[in-house]
Amino acid sequence: MGYAKIRIRNLAKMGEKSMVNSKHAKLEDVAQLAGVSKTTVSRVLNKRGYLSQATIDKVYAAMKELNYQPNTIARQLFKQKTNMVGLIFPTVNNPFFGQLVAKLENILYERGYKVLIGNSQNDPQKEEDYLNQLLAHQVDGLIVGAHNRGLKEYQHANLPVVSIDRIMNDDIPVVSSDNYQGGKIATEALIAAGCQTIIHTDGPENLESNTSKRQQAYEEVMRQHERIPVTYNLDFNISTAEKIKIFRKIFEDYPQVDGIVTSNDTDAATILSLAPLYNKKVPHDLKIIGYDGADMTRLMLPHLSTIQQPIDKIAEVAVNLLEEKISGKKPSSPPPLEVKFIKGLTS
Amino acid sequence: MGYAKIRIRNLAKMGEKSMVNSKHAKLEDVAQLAGVSKTTVSRVLNKRGYLSQATIDKVYAAMKELNYQPNTIARQLFKQKTNMVGLIFPTVNNPFFGQLVAKLENILYERGYKVLIGNSQNDPQKEEDYLNQLLAHQVDGLIVGAHNRGLKEYQHANLPVVSIDRIMNDDIPVVSSDNYQGGKIATEALIAAGCQTIIHTDGPENLESNTSKRQQAYEEVMRQHERIPVTYNLDFNISTAEKIKIFRKIFEDYPQVDGIVTSNDTDAATILSLAPLYNKKVPHDLKIIGYDGADMTRLMLPHLSTIQQPIDKIAEVAVNLLEEKISGKKPSSPPPLEVKFIKGLTS
Repeated sequence: MGYAKIRIRNLAKMGEKSMVNSKHAKLEDVAQLAGVSKTTVSRVLNKRGYLSQATIDKVYAAMKELNYQPNTIARQLFKQKTNMVGLIFPTVNNPFFGQLVAKLENILYERGYKVLIGNSQNDPQKEEDYLNQLLAHQVDGLIVGAHNRGLKEYQHANLPVVSIDRIMNDDIPVVSSDNYQGGKIATEALIAAGCQTIIHTDGPENLESNTSKRQQAYEEVMRQHERIPVTYNLDFNISTAEKIKIFRKIFEDYPQVDGIVTSNDTDAATILSLAPLYNKKVPHDLKIIGYDGADMTRLMLPHLSTIQQPIDKIAEVAVNLLEEKISGKKPSSPPPLEVKFIKGLTS
Repeated sequence: MGYAKIRIRNLAKMGEKSMVNSKHAKLEDVAQLAGVSKTTVSRVLNKRGYLSQATIDKVYAAMKELNYQPNTIARQLFKQKTNMVGLIFPTVNNPFFGQLVAKLENILYERGYKVLIGNSQNDPQKEEDYLNQLLAHQVDGLIVGAHNRGLKEYQHANLPVVSIDRIMNDDIPVVSSDNYQGGKIATEALIAAGCQTIIHTDGPENLESNTSKRQQAYEEVMRQHERIPVTYNLDFNISTAEKIKIFRKIFEDYPQVDGIVTSNDTDAATILSLAPLYNKKVPHDLKIIGYDGADMTRLMLPHLSTIQQPIDKIAEVAVNLLEEKISGKKPSSPPPLEVKFIKGLTS
């Protein structure tokens, strides 16, 4: 190829550039200016496949120069539908997430999707790995309920994502049940039952998750009744042994404790089994209300009072939203779903 | 293309055929005789992708005529490694399968595999759909623990498969814990504790699964002690309400029942919550020993006596075997893994 030829091609490029700038820049214009294929531009746009930073930079520079606005239809033309959806959750070895993932999978199956799962175990590195793997694997969308803060990959991923509970960014709708209402009902029920010293156990503070509204509600109700709210925040990733240590501390710090509102049923179960060690008879000396009310917990601990989340409904709403996102719509977060107080024998 | 040319090609084919028959037929010989591409032959061999029955028949006819023996190395040359493994289990919404799938996923992740899940819910149609989808999706292998009988797809699938508990065919290694020993320990413990009328609850009879050895052990121990074994077999797929009906029937058929050996902990939990309705105090009037001892059950029902399976170990052995199969080896079923009796407060 001679020098003249290259020059001519570059001139042609320049001509096209000014031309497209006056109308709408197209994906192929970006490809041509960046000197890459249209598929590569599409992959950069969709953050899919392994791409060198140099390629990504070139494509972004071209997009910027051409003031290119990727449009969904154009993107979809290049997007091979894989009919795979990725789910990233802390684990399936838990009554709440087990039921949620099982239900998500069932609904997705009915709608023709296969499901890739990643149990992030609340490990940010693992969550990031999963995300990159899933992006590279060309899933059509993601439903995430993992609990790590601000993974920047989600912000950049040009991929349909729906979140459960966790707040990520404005583009990602969040499905939650009414956590504020749940925390309020539980705290008010213990106050109405005559409890004097009511303690709350919850996940880590400052978590960007709708579940933190349970703690907010507990604290507000306590203050309304002129009580001092006391919350024990438990980090994720801690072992059952470490959890037991913290729960034991509640009994030691507050020997007069007569009410506990937990943020999940497995913690309530652990506290139930510790109570006899401190000569507390449930519900006479100590009343406990759990949270979640998953099928398996209801089966194994039918006597536990709990705030039941509509887990199957959460799954259904999340899949509906994901399908909207996949079809190019921009749904916002739905209103919180209703929770239900199940009065058992522990409150 | 003229007539002469076709004739020449066919003659050439015939010549090659006799030639290759005298040595080893190669995949390309099969392709040529069948009039399809090598990729198509590979897909037929690996049962992957959607193929018409006509194509499959042509390829098989050519393989038969050439006495073609597919060899692993040749197959692997055509096989794109996807680093995806499919898991087919009844559900993740269960303490045993939840822990098993979570552990399988963790180990597979560490070894660089992504995981596709299918919750078959013991529905043969769904299981078959999953299998076909996973085959079409080119997973590198499958680990299955679903409970449907004789799905013929597994027999034909030329794909690395490892089973947990379920007996499929001679090529598929089965990982199990020592079900016979588990059934024996539980029954003997209740006899030693002085129980007179010991009932067993189990899954469906005649299931081709190693778990049926629990029932076998129960019956043998009972006969050794001159007792009449009575097993209530529960079909999969029945609702909790239907299960409760059957468990109530135990109390009605055998009002004197003072010992129950169940085949899983969730059934033990259900029976525990029914006992007060028949004025049975556990363990005074009725002793119950469950089965599985999954982490979540231990956490929620720490007092339940149970036979604990080494669930994490089962997952590890299964992945090791799958990797052996993927690398072209033909491992046989390993010896059963040890179970452990956990004496709680219900026996």
